[in-house]
Amino acid sequence: MSLTDVIEGTRQATAADPANAQVSFSVANTLVPGTATAVEVRVRDHRFAVDEPAPLGGTDTAANPVEYALAALGSCQVITYQFWAAKLGIPLEQVKVTVDGDLDLHGFFGFADTRPGFTDVRITVELAGPADAADYEKLKQQVDEHCPVLDLFRNPTPTSTTLAQLTG
Amino acid sequence: MSLTDVIEGTRQATAADPANAQVSFSVANTLVPGTATAVEVRVRDHRFAVDEPAPLGGTDTAANPVEYALAALGSCQVITYQFWAAKLGIPLEQVKVTVDGDLDLHGFFGFADTRPGFTDVRITVELAGPADAADYEKLKQQVDEHCPVLDLFRNPTPTSTTLAQLTG
Repeated sequence: MSLTDVIEGTRQATAADPANAQVSFSVANTLVPGTATAVEVRVRDHRFAVDEPAPLGGTDTAANPVEYALAALGSCQVITYQFWAAKLGIPLEQVKVTVDGDLDLHGFFGFADTRPGFTDVRITVELAGPADAADYEKLKQQVDEHCPVLDLFRNPTPTSTTLAQLTG
Repeated sequence: MSLTDVIEGTRQATAADPANAQVSFSVANTLVPGTATAVEVRVRDHRFAVDEPAPLGGTDTAANPVEYALAALGSCQVITYQFWAAKLGIPLEQVKVTVDGDLDLHGFFGFADTRPGFTDVRITVELAGPADAADYEKLKQQVDEHCPVLDLFRNPTPTSTTLAQLTG
């Protein structure tokens, strides 16, 4: 099914009942027993690993959480470029997105009262295709308004945390 | 190296020169040629895939970007529990963190003026260990103040996007 078909099918489904646009995602993250920082992630039928490099106490079997956060952003940009190019009818042959993020470790370790998260994130988008520069600028504007993970980075998201089980 | 050693080593290094706490991460995300939504991610020596399920135009070879964002949050919680348990001297034998996120697809598709990102995120933490409930509540407070990806979800992060290359 082409992205244009997906867009039109979703438009019809959500117009018929707005509740069809309400979706939920769930992810389970478990410490690998006997390790300091290795985490097994399960998402639907998919599995992947998270770890820390040696200077942060891990064995570097996989990327770390903040790198996965940047990958979520970069891959979301790539896919949102694909969808909005299809929606706007702008031909696009290749998309590459590099994401760089700065972080001050004082925050994570509690050594100073600085924020533990990223202090600055830079997104560099490389596009290839036959459309003119003005069309790609228009595409970029729409992508940056509609990219779910860019929204997550730019704006506060309501979160709640619960300690569900304590084995004392 | 134990997490306690990592914490003490980082404390000394950042006390000697605060600039030692400034770290940067970089992630490259490239559309797999010939696919609609498959993305190859490169982070240091690590590689992984991102894709969409069929209803969102993909071939479901991997989790999608918003699931990776939830995994970044959940795995960051797991690892921050490990570090802060070590820092506070609270024994902790197992950590599992489930993250659920709701999203309204009207935003991504531009069918309505709703935010494209998560509208609500719920984090459920399961801990096992011999400490008492009050200690684990104290641990949770410190984790929620110092978890880098929870900070990313809760607060705005400065971002900039650049179109670096246009092949017209």
